[in-house]
Amino acid sequence: MTPIARRGLMLVLSSPSGAGKTSISRALLAREGNLSMSVSVTTRAKRPGEVAGRDYHFIDPESFGLMVNRGELLEHAKVFGNYYGTPRAAVEASLAAGRDVLFDIDWQGTQQLRHAARSDLVAIFILPPSTRELEKRLKARAQDSAKVVAERMAKASDEMSHWPEYDYVLVNDDLEASVASVVAILAAERLRRERRIGLDDFVKGLREGQ
Amino acid sequence: MTPIARRGLMLVLSSPSGAGKTSISRALLAREGNLSMSVSVTTRAKRPGEVAGRDYHFIDPESFGLMVNRGELLEHAKVFGNYYGTPRAAVEASLAAGRDVLFDIDWQGTQQLRHAARSDLVAIFILPPSTRELEKRLKARAQDSAKVVAERMAKASDEMSHWPEYDYVLVNDDLEASVASVVAILAAERLRRERRIGLDDFVKGLREGQ
Repeated sequence: MTPIARRGLMLVLSSPSGAGKTSISRALLAREGNLSMSVSVTTRAKRPGEVAGRDYHFIDPESFGLMVNRGELLEHAKVFGNYYGTPRAAVEASLAAGRDVLFDIDWQGTQQLRHAARSDLVAIFILPPSTRELEKRLKARAQDSAKVVAERMAKASDEMSHWPEYDYVLVNDDLEASVASVVAILAAERLRRERRIGLDDFVKGLREGQ
Repeated sequence: MTPIARRGLMLVLSSPSGAGKTSISRALLAREGNLSMSVSVTTRAKRPGEVAGRDYHFIDPESFGLMVNRGELLEHAKVFGNYYGTPRAAVEASLAAGRDVLFDIDWQGTQQLRHAARSDLVAIFILPPSTRELEKRLKARAQDSAKVVAERMAKASDEMSHWPEYDYVLVNDDLEASVASVVAILAAERLRRERRIGLDDFVKGLREGQ
């Protein structure tokens, strides 16, 4: 029989900061061997502990500008004066090889990615169970001032207004349950007809009695 | 916080006879408490062991005709001189109550259902791993003549040509794995944004700091 392969997918997790996205991503990457994080390019300086090529590809602003002009980035953004972007070639190679790629990006990146990727994209929005819980997590994170926490809450509110642009919505009131939900979404999306390569020949073989 | 409910979904499993659909359906119904089989109406006589209201609703041809004319059936078909159909009201009540409904129907029924149901429908096509396996299962089923087996193989071939009309495609080479796949599809589809009721108010509450 003709073997059935599949095209990889682009899994986007977005959420307001403090909703638990990073914990979900980590657990997911540990569990799913066929899933890896997209490595962005950035113009910002390397921080202590970061590894070039693993955490980011660190490039200068001129190289970044060239990548934008050549259409080599699937999405890009400026954050606090630094540029960040997703190189198209690495993602495309992964998808073609049937490997899935995880993106931890905000609603703006997701919009750009959807425009560039279309049916390869599976976008999940993660909500906190309550404002109180969100506030608790944002406060627990560091010894930040009330002003910084209030700014983060306002940013979280903006981010949350974009849930209708996502394919799936999770309320993260339990980390294990949320990871299981994302694992189920991955398993299901991998079985979508349009991702499977060779089904045509496989069924032809079945019908011709091979 | 505003609770989040969800609208139920219509899960269709189609396959050529002999691909293992009945075993998958049985295991699924045993495992998924929130899923129940749609009960069809039929004009054929009740067979020994069948229970009215559980296996079928047995009705006369005149009542069937009335249901068709009133648009009370989501899909209907004539098979070997008898009529079969899916009553709309029971399915609609289940979906509105957040319960999922399983349909064991062929490609013709699925086409009608998709027309009537649109986004409530999740359609899975199940393929046998090989023609040899399909033939083995069709032969094992009864002491049928070679002619009957050949007719079934031809019918299976016709049925299989319709795989491109389905959302998901499974190759059933292992019952447990196939059941797990359908369970994952159910879990994922239940998290789709458009099935979730009350998300709008839930996020509004989060953003207003309730």
